[in-house]
Amino acid sequence: MLFAVSLLSFTGASMAASRETRIPDAALKAASELRERALASDLGFRITESLTTEVGPRLAGSEADARAVQWAEAKFRELGFDKVWKEPVTFPKWERRSEHGEVLGTARQSLALTALGGSPGGTAEGEIVRFADLAALEAAPAGSLAGKIAFVDFRMPRAKDGAGYGPGGGIRSRGPSAAIRAGAIGYLMRSAGTDSHRSPHTGITRFDDGLTPVPSAALAAPDADQLARLLERGSVRVRFALDCGWDGQATSYNVIGEMRGTSKPDEVVLIGGHLDSWDLGTGAIDDGAGVGLTMAAAKLIGDSKQRPARTIRVVAFANEEQGLYGGKAYAQEHAKDVKKHQLAAESDFGAGRIYAYSSSAPAYAQAADQQIAEALAPLGIAHTPGKGGPGPDISPFAAQGLAWARLAQDGTDYFDYHHTPDDTLDKIDPKALAQNVAAYAVFAYLAASADGDFGSEAKKVTPPEE
Amino acid sequence: MLFAVSLLSFTGASMAASRETRIPDAALKAASELRERALASDLGFRITESLTTEVGPRLAGSEADARAVQWAEAKFRELGFDKVWKEPVTFPKWERRSEHGEVLGTARQSLALTALGGSPGGTAEGEIVRFADLAALEAAPAGSLAGKIAFVDFRMPRAKDGAGYGPGGGIRSRGPSAAIRAGAIGYLMRSAGTDSHRSPHTGITRFDDGLTPVPSAALAAPDADQLARLLERGSVRVRFALDCGWDGQATSYNVIGEMRGTSKPDEVVLIGGHLDSWDLGTGAIDDGAGVGLTMAAAKLIGDSKQRPARTIRVVAFANEEQGLYGGKAYAQEHAKDVKKHQLAAESDFGAGRIYAYSSSAPAYAQAADQQIAEALAPLGIAHTPGKGGPGPDISPFAAQGLAWARLAQDGTDYFDYHHTPDDTLDKIDPKALAQNVAAYAVFAYLAASADGDFGSEAKKVTPPEE
Repeated sequence: MLFAVSLLSFTGASMAASRETRIPDAALKAASELRERALASDLGFRITESLTTEVGPRLAGSEADARAVQWAEAKFRELGFDKVWKEPVTFPKWERRSEHGEVLGTARQSLALTALGGSPGGTAEGEIVRFADLAALEAAPAGSLAGKIAFVDFRMPRAKDGAGYGPGGGIRSRGPSAAIRAGAIGYLMRSAGTDSHRSPHTGITRFDDGLTPVPSAALAAPDADQLARLLERGSVRVRFALDCGWDGQATSYNVIGEMRGTSKPDEVVLIGGHLDSWDLGTGAIDDGAGVGLTMAAAKLIGDSKQRPARTIRVVAFANEEQGLYGGKAYAQEHAKDVKKHQLAAESDFGAGRIYAYSSSAPAYAQAADQQIAEALAPLGIAHTPGKGGPGPDISPFAAQGLAWARLAQDGTDYFDYHHTPDDTLDKIDPKALAQNVAAYAVFAYLAASADGDFGSEAKKVTPPEE
Repeated sequence: MLFAVSLLSFTGASMAASRETRIPDAALKAASELRERALASDLGFRITESLTTEVGPRLAGSEADARAVQWAEAKFRELGFDKVWKEPVTFPKWERRSEHGEVLGTARQSLALTALGGSPGGTAEGEIVRFADLAALEAAPAGSLAGKIAFVDFRMPRAKDGAGYGPGGGIRSRGPSAAIRAGAIGYLMRSAGTDSHRSPHTGITRFDDGLTPVPSAALAAPDADQLARLLERGSVRVRFALDCGWDGQATSYNVIGEMRGTSKPDEVVLIGGHLDSWDLGTGAIDDGAGVGLTMAAAKLIGDSKQRPARTIRVVAFANEEQGLYGGKAYAQEHAKDVKKHQLAAESDFGAGRIYAYSSSAPAYAQAADQQIAEALAPLGIAHTPGKGGPGPDISPFAAQGLAWARLAQDGTDYFDYHHTPDDTLDKIDPKALAQNVAAYAVFAYLAASADGDFGSEAKKVTPPEE
């Protein structure tokens, strides 16, 4: 028994040892040179500048989104990517045409608000009822808001890792349905943001099955303050009119470019961001930066004296904003190739400096994971094993078994601008963006150079029981 | 000759000594107590909160402006002012209804812009021609901008004392006429502001006699950046449509409240701000704060155990924004009473801490001026004799001989919000506002308690030659 156990242990250790993923010294040396080259380059900023200037806002399914797809293909080619193609992504099309709101009565004045993505058009007019948070609204009895407008006045806390977006975003996605269940004719929320400007934050919402959607909008923080102050004085009537809504189906594209690997070109390290943006700003931090910095990282790798064994694949995902359509389409299209994806990382949290690295590496790839972390350390990046998860657009594929890495960005000011008109290029610090490019370049180069894998493996999906 | 000169000198010195203005010790002691009481009070903030919340934006001549007049009368009475009245002010009425702009062509996207006050409505569509500053535009030959839109892309520098507003504001007031002279069909300028948000800065402009006005608007800073970047790539066509314009005459009111003095109630120390605001924000820093803090200062003086000899008069001036109409009307209405105005100070530069004090005091009032400065010093206020000038609304009266004082506010961030939708209550630090109230209370109390005057004297106006 003792012998058997020992044998088993030995065998296990031996198997692990034989399978241990390691990164060759030559690759570590090349990555170090790559890191310095990337830090000295403004390519990531220039690509982001090009997208946000030449295309501007690019709501999924819009004419501008189609221009963004053309831009991405052309940019990949201009940068000398070895292979460039696109994969169709189809989704319902939503559009915003106009919106305005106002306080009625003796304190009449306009309100800065914006429709939530997915809201129907229409005019809501009625007394507003304030709730401190989503739980309070969800506790409102059925019928208690009949003829009224629900107003959820939750202040999203500021956090480096964006932790406040959980409750803030939840109020956006689940608030309208809760309001309708209580009988409300309209829904207003304090923007899920951390700023105090007259730029409201949009973002997708949804309505539970069986409910009739009502006009739903986010107020700029100063306007939410104003309503709260007016409510301290008595009842407040508000009217807001949204001209927006769903309009059939649209097809956009995941646009993909590859820098070919040397000895294992069919295996890929996937990096990317999403190409679409909300319509209010030019989508600089969300997510022009993610597209720009990953394109730049791959380009710098492609220009290396010694390319890595595996291919670097950059994906500019379609329509992340309205429901990860691009990420889901990619997962479906490439479902049979999970194992060929060595490791994947998406950048979709602005353009702040990367401060932490972690991955889903299994035990046998921990040594390589540690090697990547050590190569990132000179960039001020800490190794935080076990923390975080995959970026939004790779999460559907990660659920199928894709190995992922997380290069965590400092998002302290991300929700000052996120989904607002103020998401523009001036909010990006070119030096911070270069640090991101360097981190992605080092990460992708090393992952693509490893002897061994990081655990991507198609999960067996159990069919649902009859 | 020598004797005669000496006698003259002696007589002059003797006259000055006999006329020297001084502030009694009892008043200095009372002012010190008043200062501490004001610092501990939130009254200035509460009044400002009331105006900006209950009335909100209040463009001169609008329905909201009329509500602001009612509010001011009611607030003076609520605070227990001894005398409250209003004086009519008539001016041309301008209003903004809607506005939008867009880049045309392959980079088509919307532009955040706002009509300049006084602009005519209309649509301008054409190629834009960029000028680095006003001088460059003024140098454009007649006809050189035929069919085109002038774009002045000057970055206003940030300064504690607002010095950058000279060139920035000049581009707003003189740019449109220069553009028209060169043949332009429209005028765009980078906002006269120091922020980088999508909130453009409005403000009054004018058109020289004999010119046909063209649609004139200010771009938000990120949109000016965007046009500049697009112009680096080639020609850029823009279309912008303004629905705004002049519509007859309107009458509003200077609203005035007094806290009566004890022994010389007919002489007044005048403090105040302007009641109107631009229509985009709620006019918190421009100039709800000025109204709120001067009302509060007078109220605190009125509540003193020992009121000063002279009356404290608070004036909430009408329509400062479109041409100092309230200030001019006041100067005209009170032209015969210059001498009864002991000293005047207007607050119209936001809500930042006061850092410097100066006045127009003549030599014989320098001692009293110094006494005021010493009483302000514990508030962190430096004495800066000879610096600055009167606030905008008292400047017409100052030109007629009114003695003025300047309580200079830190305006480092004033032009981040000035004339934008972002001029809202959240931009005011209540503690900084309390420091302002304390400074105005101390200043007004001491000026009203002085033995002697500060030099107000009607100037002889020479009639223009035939």
